[in-house]
Amino acid sequence: MIKVGIIGITGYTGQELMKILIGHPDVKITYLFSRLDKPKKIGEIFPKFNGVLDLECSNTIDIVEIKRLCEIVFLALPHTVSMQIAPRLISQNIKVVDLSADYRFKNSAIYENCYKIAHSDKDNIKNAVYGLSEINKKAIEDARLIANPGCYPTPSILACAPLLKNNFIDIDSIIIDAKSGVSGAGKKKLADFMFCEVNENFKAYKINCHQHMPEINDQLSEIAAKKVSVNFVPHLIPINRGILTTIYVKLGKCLLAQDLIKTYRDFYADSFFIRIREEGEFPELKDVINTNFCDIGICVDLDKKIAIIICVIDNLLKGASGQAVQNLNIMCGLDERAGLVW
Amino acid sequence: MIKVGIIGITGYTGQELMKILIGHPDVKITYLFSRLDKPKKIGEIFPKFNGVLDLECSNTIDIVEIKRLCEIVFLALPHTVSMQIAPRLISQNIKVVDLSADYRFKNSAIYENCYKIAHSDKDNIKNAVYGLSEINKKAIEDARLIANPGCYPTPSILACAPLLKNNFIDIDSIIIDAKSGVSGAGKKKLADFMFCEVNENFKAYKINCHQHMPEINDQLSEIAAKKVSVNFVPHLIPINRGILTTIYVKLGKCLLAQDLIKTYRDFYADSFFIRIREEGEFPELKDVINTNFCDIGICVDLDKKIAIIICVIDNLLKGASGQAVQNLNIMCGLDERAGLVW
Amino acid sequence: MIKVGIIGITGYTGQELMKILIGHPDVKITYLFSRLDKPKKIGEIFPKFNGVLDLECSNTIDIVEIKRLCEIVFLALPHTVSMQIAPRLISQNIKVVDLSADYRFKNSAIYENCYKIAHSDKDNIKNAVYGLSEINKKAIEDARLIANPGCYPTPSILACAPLLKNNFIDIDSIIIDAKSGVSGAGKKKLADFMFCEVNENFKAYKINCHQHMPEINDQLSEIAAKKVSVNFVPHLIPINRGILTTIYVKLGKCLLAQDLIKTYRDFYADSFFIRIREEGEFPELKDVINTNFCDIGICVDLDKKIAIIICVIDNLLKGASGQAVQNLNIMCGLDERAGLVW
Amino acid sequence: MIKVGIIGITGYTGQELMKILIGHPDVKITYLFSRLDKPKKIGEIFPKFNGVLDLECSNTIDIVEIKRLCEIVFLALPHTVSMQIAPRLISQNIKVVDLSADYRFKNSAIYENCYKIAHSDKDNIKNAVYGLSEINKKAIEDARLIANPGCYPTPSILACAPLLKNNFIDIDSIIIDAKSGVSGAGKKKLADFMFCEVNENFKAYKINCHQHMPEINDQLSEIAAKKVSVNFVPHLIPINRGILTTIYVKLGKCLLAQDLIKTYRDFYADSFFIRIREEGEFPELKDVINTNFCDIGICVDLDKKIAIIICVIDNLLKGASGQAVQNLNIMCGLDERAGLVW
Repeated sequence: MIKVGIIGITGYTGQELMKILIGHPDVKITYLFSRLDKPKKIGEIFPKFNGVLDLECSNTIDIVEIKRLCEIVFLALPHTVSMQIAPRLISQNIKVVDLSADYRFKNSAIYENCYKIAHSDKDNIKNAVYGLSEINKKAIEDARLIANPGCYPTPSILACAPLLKNNFIDIDSIIIDAKSGVSGAGKKKLADFMFCEVNENFKAYKINCHQHMPEINDQLSEIAAKKVSVNFVPHLIPINRGILTTIYVKLGKCLLAQDLIKTYRDFYADSFFIRIREEGEFPELKDVINTNFCDIGICVDLDKKIAIIICVIDNLLKGASGQAVQNLNIMCGLDERAGLVW
Repeated sequence: MIKVGIIGITGYTGQELMKILIGHPDVKITYLFSRLDKPKKIGEIFPKFNGVLDLECSNTIDIVEIKRLCEIVFLALPHTVSMQIAPRLISQNIKVVDLSADYRFKNSAIYENCYKIAHSDKDNIKNAVYGLSEINKKAIEDARLIANPGCYPTPSILACAPLLKNNFIDIDSIIIDAKSGVSGAGKKKLADFMFCEVNENFKAYKINCHQHMPEINDQLSEIAAKKVSVNFVPHLIPINRGILTTIYVKLGKCLLAQDLIKTYRDFYADSFFIRIREEGEFPELKDVINTNFCDIGICVDLDKKIAIIICVIDNLLKGASGQAVQNLNIMCGLDERAGLVW
Repeated sequence: MIKVGIIGITGYTGQELMKILIGHPDVKITYLFSRLDKPKKIGEIFPKFNGVLDLECSNTIDIVEIKRLCEIVFLALPHTVSMQIAPRLISQNIKVVDLSADYRFKNSAIYENCYKIAHSDKDNIKNAVYGLSEINKKAIEDARLIANPGCYPTPSILACAPLLKNNFIDIDSIIIDAKSGVSGAGKKKLADFMFCEVNENFKAYKINCHQHMPEINDQLSEIAAKKVSVNFVPHLIPINRGILTTIYVKLGKCLLAQDLIKTYRDFYADSFFIRIREEGEFPELKDVINTNFCDIGICVDLDKKIAIIICVIDNLLKGASGQAVQNLNIMCGLDERAGLVW
Repeated sequence: MIKVGIIGITGYTGQELMKILIGHPDVKITYLFSRLDKPKKIGEIFPKFNGVLDLECSNTIDIVEIKRLCEIVFLALPHTVSMQIAPRLISQNIKVVDLSADYRFKNSAIYENCYKIAHSDKDNIKNAVYGLSEINKKAIEDARLIANPGCYPTPSILACAPLLKNNFIDIDSIIIDAKSGVSGAGKKKLADFMFCEVNENFKAYKINCHQHMPEINDQLSEIAAKKVSVNFVPHLIPINRGILTTIYVKLGKCLLAQDLIKTYRDFYADSFFIRIREEGEFPELKDVINTNFCDIGICVDLDKKIAIIICVIDNLLKGASGQAVQNLNIMCGLDERAGLVW
């Protein structure tokens, strides 16, 4: 059994990590941390874990103790907090999967511009592997620090990668119209996320200025081996979880939906968690909610040579904690599906 | 046209007051106040009012100016804030409809115990009329200070009053199982009211210790002319608005549903906004949402002599701003329906 | 008082028409029809109308009787049913506002292809005016038969018209990513619209093959005076009402958001129900729900010369019954706002 | 591995059974049936099962073939259909867990009165064990036919059993105010369960005449060893899943909340899936959604000697498919938690 710790358990991704790992056949949770007045049984903090996880949550970060208890640690912390803790774990040879944005950018200047803060651990940036499991599997196998991808970037990049790798599209033409459930925003107590403000409402927000847009551009540029810059418009759906992206791209040549479907299936032939639909079929959120799958449907407007790609994930699983566990599985030489089906 | 002011416009009841009064044929909104950095057009604060209410919202409370502008003022303020402002208005002969709890209790000790604060304007308590329009219409006509009822008390009292007035029930047997939409909690930024905490959830809260229970007991005791003490269990429904109360009472004698329905219809014969259903029919929230109506359905378990009364209102209208305007209409000699149908 | 009838009252648009017209100062509802076993009081069919509309709903269509009772009739009927009744009303000089698609296409072949049925009243097509109030106000004034626009076409056309009229865009580049609440689908008892299928779900549907796409193309072509063909992807939001469209267009020349905002404001200078936001501000559904407004926000990606237009309406009001009443107002020489504010 | 079949997979309980059993460590799904035109891969019917359950769903019921493939079969069928199939399976010595109501009543007359149909398999009624796992564990171990309890009866009976067994209450005083998510109604395409009818609505229904009331009375009478008759008022919550029951009972003697909590904990000492809260704490739906747990909170009004018990379950798990698998575990000598945590 691999011994695992989670630092930051009160947010949605922390809770989801616990839920997955309790059912994981090859893993044992040995350490939990949260900012508490005093240590508490996890069942006292979250009654739903009563009876299924009998562990005390610590309120101190003692690296020696963590070293004794854990081989690998998940950081489910706010951006800017992770980079204060990750270097201390790494220096002790503890593997780290960081769910924040802190190690996602090779160029710290982009990070600093995007999150409006100085990066305090530039040394470890070079050690970090961007943990989009299907795209970077080889590098993840040997990684000691995973920068787990953002929720919006996950389906956006997975849906565009086969097109860019095959040089099929005008790279200036990518429009990503994304829609997310509310848990994507985390547990921040903002007026914008109060029940009566969200319920029976729908809105676009941070149009072309969301912090995930530079992350998408950065990764797509890497994949295309040239500078990619997308239009990205996120919207808030009044539901708890799930992201659906509707992506519009201009094809460089005449391609049928069938051609693209074959291309995607070849590209993701070894990727258990990516499922490409038949022509004329499109995934909806309920097909992937509470799973680690990413489902993709594709159609083409032949007249205008526009391809439309629908891509759905559960933002808390494939878009966060599920992918984090998939990365743990890959790093630890386990079946990547372990603990995730389902 | 009656000139009206609203103090406190950012909460749900303040917004709802503006919405009703904009469409009210005999009223003109002349003054708005909110705690702002600087005065602002109402359309800047709430884009939805652009084009329909061209008024600047003040950020100061100048009583002389209010006296010049208004005959009557609504206080849509948090509990404990109203009693700081009401006496200043009343001393200037401005009529006041207070939507907070500050003037609802004749016995200030109950208020102080319930809201955990000293009452700072005991003088005006005796002048206040409890604004349950159908029960206290005569007193409201002559009132200069209305204590507008709480949202839960409104359907609870309206549903029990005919039974108590007619001495039909064991007064110790009243069980009120109440369910409310989330706007009943106001706009407080509490973790409990974040979208993901409320959505797809349902819970009981403040079981037998909700601040509206003493208010219900106080008013029912007044109606019954003896001490009434209910069991009151509120629940939170993941919807924006509406209250449904399911009330269980032990009948003192054998009465048919038909008998009770007739009793209720007689009791509310002159009450436009109270609608009693036929036997076997029960109201649901959608019958009253966005209206000032209170709908009631009644059935009887003859074997056990238990009557079950279902009573529904829109908590922001009949349970707050709608009833406040109904009270304004009664105080000002207008048709009580003015501005409210619909 | 203008005497008005409604044929088809059980659907959402029929109910909404009743609700608006009850509060309309210059209109009296004199006739209602629905397929019933026997005539019924409207309050028996919908308890929410008890006390506010005391009228019997007929179960027969007697044109002579309708002529006696009504000057103007709304048809809130399914597609293909309207064209069986409209000619009989028109022949009696009764004005008609048809909320179905039956008279929306000048070229009946498009209609027949789209709705898979033969058109049985081609004679009256030429008399019909497409009732997009802001675009066709002059023609509506003199019309005797209004083809009230579809819900999706309303915000789509209103958002694109100023761009096309001013020749600002590449007309092949229009992408309309639309999101609608569930009432847009009407009251059909389909598995797709059952609560548990829709709730906590989100999906795209009828991608580039929705029946409203030809309607949008038809009207935009009219406005542009050349053939326009859009990409149109509708999505289903798990809420009751509201449509938000996110529109992406390629600008033909370099234009700032500010330029476009001025263009839109000039274009809609006389249009009370169209509100254009300041730069950097975007409307959300709650700004227009339960109103007849259409709110528009605009931004520009200068690098790629792409404009993004966010446009929101209430699909049952500006997208159906509200616009229908606005058209009645225009046809009857009333203030177009009568009964609609609010 | 125990070989298991499911007859009826398109409803919510059938889907939930597949989901649980896919992850069950000791079970293999070997046979699926649904009324289809032709046999289909399960992934074709429900895309969400693609990749995780590679099995063809049959459209014929061939008992010999089922005997070859399965040791135990779940019937996830509508009431009245189960009793046509169960006897054929039982005659072949195949164990049966029936999720319908067909074998829940020892007295077929109650069933026939309640479901308005003649019972066609009275012979097997005597062989059926009512599968409320915690109450009837011994009998379930040896059962060959399980009548799996209804969703409302499960929390209602579990919450009342300790009180009745200990003779703590006036048995005529039980009031069960129950609230359920919409999946409890199954997949029936009724107007009442359309999205727009349910969403933002809340209602009581079948007051004191729900088909689960006789089932509750029957089982509580068995437990109390005298005739019990409750008041039962179900309500519909606009959410997908979960039941919360608020139960009011008159205590026969003065008991503290602490006394009752101890009584419940003793009663359920060996019941993993029943969790009793500390004094002053009450469960909410989110504590048990997507789990097989039943959580209970208790308080007492000492003045009126009324106990209030809050009991929550997931209606599709502990209230249907979860409990069905728990029963399979007990019948097959497995750990009752197998496949259910979580």
